[in-house]
Amino acid sequence: MQPSGKILVAQGGGPTAVINQSLVGVVLEARRFREVRQVYGAHHGVRGIVNEDFVDLTQETSHNLELVAGTPASALGSTRDKPDLKYCQEIFKVLQAHEIGHFFYIGGNDSSDTVRIVSEEAKKAGYPLRSIHIPKTIDNDLVGNDHTPGFPSAARFVAQAFAGANLDNAALPGVYVAVVMGRHAGFLTAASALGKKFPDDGPHLIYLPERTFELPRFLADVKTMYERYGRCVIAVSEGIHDASGQAIAAQLAKDLEHDAHGNVQLSGTGALADLLCEEIKEKLGIKRVRGDTFGYLQRSFIGCVSDVDQREAREVGEKAVQYAMWGDRDGSVAIKRTGYYSADYELVPLETVAGKTRTMDDAFISDSGTDVTDAFRLYLRPLLGSGMPDAYRLRPNPVPKVLKR
Amino acid sequence: MQPSGKILVAQGGGPTAVINQSLVGVVLEARRFREVRQVYGAHHGVRGIVNEDFVDLTQETSHNLELVAGTPASALGSTRDKPDLKYCQEIFKVLQAHEIGHFFYIGGNDSSDTVRIVSEEAKKAGYPLRSIHIPKTIDNDLVGNDHTPGFPSAARFVAQAFAGANLDNAALPGVYVAVVMGRHAGFLTAASALGKKFPDDGPHLIYLPERTFELPRFLADVKTMYERYGRCVIAVSEGIHDASGQAIAAQLAKDLEHDAHGNVQLSGTGALADLLCEEIKEKLGIKRVRGDTFGYLQRSFIGCVSDVDQREAREVGEKAVQYAMWGDRDGSVAIKRTGYYSADYELVPLETVAGKTRTMDDAFISDSGTDVTDAFRLYLRPLLGSGMPDAYRLRPNPVPKVLKR
Repeated sequence: MQPSGKILVAQGGGPTAVINQSLVGVVLEARRFREVRQVYGAHHGVRGIVNEDFVDLTQETSHNLELVAGTPASALGSTRDKPDLKYCQEIFKVLQAHEIGHFFYIGGNDSSDTVRIVSEEAKKAGYPLRSIHIPKTIDNDLVGNDHTPGFPSAARFVAQAFAGANLDNAALPGVYVAVVMGRHAGFLTAASALGKKFPDDGPHLIYLPERTFELPRFLADVKTMYERYGRCVIAVSEGIHDASGQAIAAQLAKDLEHDAHGNVQLSGTGALADLLCEEIKEKLGIKRVRGDTFGYLQRSFIGCVSDVDQREAREVGEKAVQYAMWGDRDGSVAIKRTGYYSADYELVPLETVAGKTRTMDDAFISDSGTDVTDAFRLYLRPLLGSGMPDAYRLRPNPVPKVLKR
Repeated sequence: MQPSGKILVAQGGGPTAVINQSLVGVVLEARRFREVRQVYGAHHGVRGIVNEDFVDLTQETSHNLELVAGTPASALGSTRDKPDLKYCQEIFKVLQAHEIGHFFYIGGNDSSDTVRIVSEEAKKAGYPLRSIHIPKTIDNDLVGNDHTPGFPSAARFVAQAFAGANLDNAALPGVYVAVVMGRHAGFLTAASALGKKFPDDGPHLIYLPERTFELPRFLADVKTMYERYGRCVIAVSEGIHDASGQAIAAQLAKDLEHDAHGNVQLSGTGALADLLCEEIKEKLGIKRVRGDTFGYLQRSFIGCVSDVDQREAREVGEKAVQYAMWGDRDGSVAIKRTGYYSADYELVPLETVAGKTRTMDDAFISDSGTDVTDAFRLYLRPLLGSGMPDAYRLRPNPVPKVLKR
């Protein structure tokens, strides 16, 4: 294959805290290769490619690129478009017209599928295109990766949020339910467990999409914990479902004839948290029951990021360019764990990742189904990075009563 | 008045990120006075006082106290009890029985009212008690204060949250509505404006309880901004209400016959955000509309704190002890601004603060009623503290189209 003078990079799917590290990793590494003449970025992912909405990143200063790298959310803009074959053929036409020799797409499993189809189209046409998928998703659900860039920072947000919510709940006891993103994979919800320090800290219960959710059992669990601790902090995945796979939010909305939430949307609404809170109030007669939905904060909050995640997100971008320039095949960059804690990168076939969903190993979930194991704690802790805030308590030094009423 | 050997401190109302700084300020400063023999803390505020549920803080190490000071949420526990005269008389009986000479209560305007009544009871009984109220509230609604400890850190959370949400919304354009705490005062919602950097950044619209909310005007505002920017980020106070004072959440729930939210609770539910999002979708026909409710995160999130807030929260605790030991009157410690930026403290009469609510000055709200003024930006910026994260963008360097479709 002839090395080309033009590179194109784009970002797809939900933004993360570190997706711009990968973008900047591509741009800065590409410019170290003398055969690279120009680095283009497409606005709003594949949508920007078919619209030829390109920005010349070669004209950026490396200083501003470094500042953008530290800024959350896709700097080029993103898209929810999931291209079919025809859409991918349109993409390929534009790449040809602009004489793009290397195509890098930063995204989740849908994005890797797009890269796979574009790669095949190029082969069919005999056009010399190198196509590389760069992993990104807060859901941590890419097959073939130890973890995915963006997940550690979102996990850190969730852990810090629960550490704080637990303290708040201890100060004003009651039941607290917080709904966390992750439709099919429970990794992010499970990260709530890393906010726990003392044995009686919350989250006391964790509900994952990897396990069937049964309302009667949920209520019994809450009752047990509330009686044991005088309070209960609960982490719930937005993706919890019954045995038939129906979303619990949809089921509860129907059962209670809640028109407002009849048409259930999982993210960007507080429905599931509110519905679970109502069940607890009604069925268990507990007065102080509060629900939060972490919503977009967990992927967009500026100022909560894992330094390990930043480093790795940068490196997958750099490695993608190296694989493209020195390698002879298309693929997806994957993170492999090599120690406690160290990581390295591999280029895996696009088919390994494309359109597949990874969920949590059984070894990460406790037998009760409502907690994580030490294996999960060992897996996640190093990814959260340095400088995690810690919680401290006053020691019990009781004063004898005088009135003794 | 004879100096007493026993001091009692307690924490009331909603926890904040820095309320333990004030607690530790009291404990450490008190121990510098040789006439102080013991420092008691009451668990869960006034409730713990009437139950004689005390902890001896004199037995704590200063090292652990410093670590607790840096931990959010009331380390002694809090309460929502709002004592009436009889309740205050019970409090006073316990203080007498334990020979408490100095009583410090860290809390909002309800707590200052409790201190006021207890102070009067002591005077009536001829018992030598010094009672000092120490300010705390994320709502920033205490009269006689430039601002209140806890507000700057919560404001920082809100500003950072909007800075991130704006970037996320720019990456995947649509309408984003986030509901912020503050039933009567809009300070915390207004803090969203400090997350804005570039002229086209959100929040594009801010709705405060200081202004009447009209749904048709809201929808017209959103339409204007959406047409101007291709997206719209909106900050809404949980306390928005119509001309008659009825909460908008209650009104919308009724209009739309949304049973789920018929009985409207402002915090700990996503109802208002969801209802506003539905209105926007239905009436304006915009497809991507997302709502978040910041909920308990804005007051409890561990790891987002203003260093200015930490310092001042510590100082109001220290000053409270100094006023109590050297002064000859009861009162409430108040923060006064003395420069840009410097602050000092005063002991103001309890009647100044007790049971009153401060709202935003007209000078802080733009004529449109949906933005803040530069006066507000100047007021708030120094309180947010050092190290605020910043957002950066790629510069526009468009690439000419080739296919030009």
